[in-house]
Amino acid sequence: MIINGLPGDSIYANDRGLLYGDGVFRTLLIRHGKLLHWPQHYNKLQHDCAAIGIICPSIQLLGAELGQLALSDPDAIAKIMITRGPASRGYAPAANPQVTRIISTSGIPDYPDSYAAQGIKVYLCKLRMGHQPRLAGIKHLNRLENVLAAAEWNNPDIAEGILLDQDGYVIEGTRSNLFLVRDGKLFTPDLSKCGVAGLQRERVINYARQQRIICKVTELTLDDLLAADEIFLVNSVIGLWPVRDLHRFSSQHFPVSLQIQEWLNNGSN
Amino acid sequence: MIINGLPGDSIYANDRGLLYGDGVFRTLLIRHGKLLHWPQHYNKLQHDCAAIGIICPSIQLLGAELGQLALSDPDAIAKIMITRGPASRGYAPAANPQVTRIISTSGIPDYPDSYAAQGIKVYLCKLRMGHQPRLAGIKHLNRLENVLAAAEWNNPDIAEGILLDQDGYVIEGTRSNLFLVRDGKLFTPDLSKCGVAGLQRERVINYARQQRIICKVTELTLDDLLAADEIFLVNSVIGLWPVRDLHRFSSQHFPVSLQIQEWLNNGSN
Repeated sequence: MIINGLPGDSIYANDRGLLYGDGVFRTLLIRHGKLLHWPQHYNKLQHDCAAIGIICPSIQLLGAELGQLALSDPDAIAKIMITRGPASRGYAPAANPQVTRIISTSGIPDYPDSYAAQGIKVYLCKLRMGHQPRLAGIKHLNRLENVLAAAEWNNPDIAEGILLDQDGYVIEGTRSNLFLVRDGKLFTPDLSKCGVAGLQRERVINYARQQRIICKVTELTLDDLLAADEIFLVNSVIGLWPVRDLHRFSSQHFPVSLQIQEWLNNGSN
Repeated sequence: MIINGLPGDSIYANDRGLLYGDGVFRTLLIRHGKLLHWPQHYNKLQHDCAAIGIICPSIQLLGAELGQLALSDPDAIAKIMITRGPASRGYAPAANPQVTRIISTSGIPDYPDSYAAQGIKVYLCKLRMGHQPRLAGIKHLNRLENVLAAAEWNNPDIAEGILLDQDGYVIEGTRSNLFLVRDGKLFTPDLSKCGVAGLQRERVINYARQQRIICKVTELTLDDLLAADEIFLVNSVIGLWPVRDLHRFSSQHFPVSLQIQEWLNNGSN
């Protein structure tokens, strides 16, 4: 772990990241010592920092620190957290905060191969996500909804949980973005009121555009989901997992999902 | 600062309080070495811990650690944070987490006497609070809404900002609870969808009951607020501040507010 450029494992207990969740983060893969999709991740990080008024450290600085960890940990999950730094009392941010940057690596989880090939069993979470357009799409540190949702199941056969919003629209997985396939078209939930707009979601949308596959970002109901030909989940650690089993939805054939999975894992964009 | 019983100023950077805002807090006053309303604060802390599934440390343990700080800092603001502790990756909480407790003190801000006596100027925040019934009322560490709201003004004459929810109902101040007085009755916003139910709000409600003043917890619109005879804000640090100036509301007489203020500052309950 590298904290503000130095090896370390702790932060000041008056850091606004702890006090208020006042910061953002990203998770990406290091494979064979190489950061996967780093410039795109950096763009997202910078966008999210700007959305809450934090000045993002430069891509050179963060890239160098990630590169340092990649030397000793060439196959790992890397996590970057940027917070508004230590503070005196009060919610109002200082004019020129000393941003905290925390770069860490951890082992890549050993998921069964069947998750990617034969699909996963998914749980429908009871918690409904609240709407906050000012924070929607951003990967910020206020993640209690995800924590409470992930605490709802403990059956190890269930690999992910799906979240609806307060109006009953499908939004995402607890740690992944969601797509459905119907009649050869892709659909993914609109995230303008809540949810996290992950990089792999963006990559799938861009891939569809390149392949001239119609991909609609729209409101999706649970009925839309259950009537899909295929459902799949994406994030930077898992890649793409087709959904085998969700509520009344069941499927064992995922031709479109597996085509996109192949591209996501091997595509350069 | 005392962290898990030992003097210190830092926490592990993999603490879930930082990663996800997975924790709760309280702020209370120490006056002449005495913790004000400590048993009531502890009840709130314990309630909030339970709401997100954290086992709260005992009142004896936390009280002893606060007492230790009160010896060297007999007039101060004390803050208690309880988090779900350090973690491996993933939103799902461990079965038996090692809870982190952080006890700190800071100086009592030197607010002008006029705030309590002649009232304050208040800003109407543009940010609208999202609804999340599962977290409503709880003083948890996901406070980005408060941060963004408090960043909206920097006029030092403005002492607090008022927040409405996504439906336009009045909820609270950025760091205080709100009451209005009309025709001798008290009204305070319902906090079942969002907001923080502070201890001083509870004390005012209890005081009204004892005094047989009608106090309604209800939905309040901005029009209700602007048509009030008096508006006041409460929290454990400021006590009670009447509102002198808010949007189109203006007042210089606060007989009911000042009566409640007197009791809040000197009442034993």
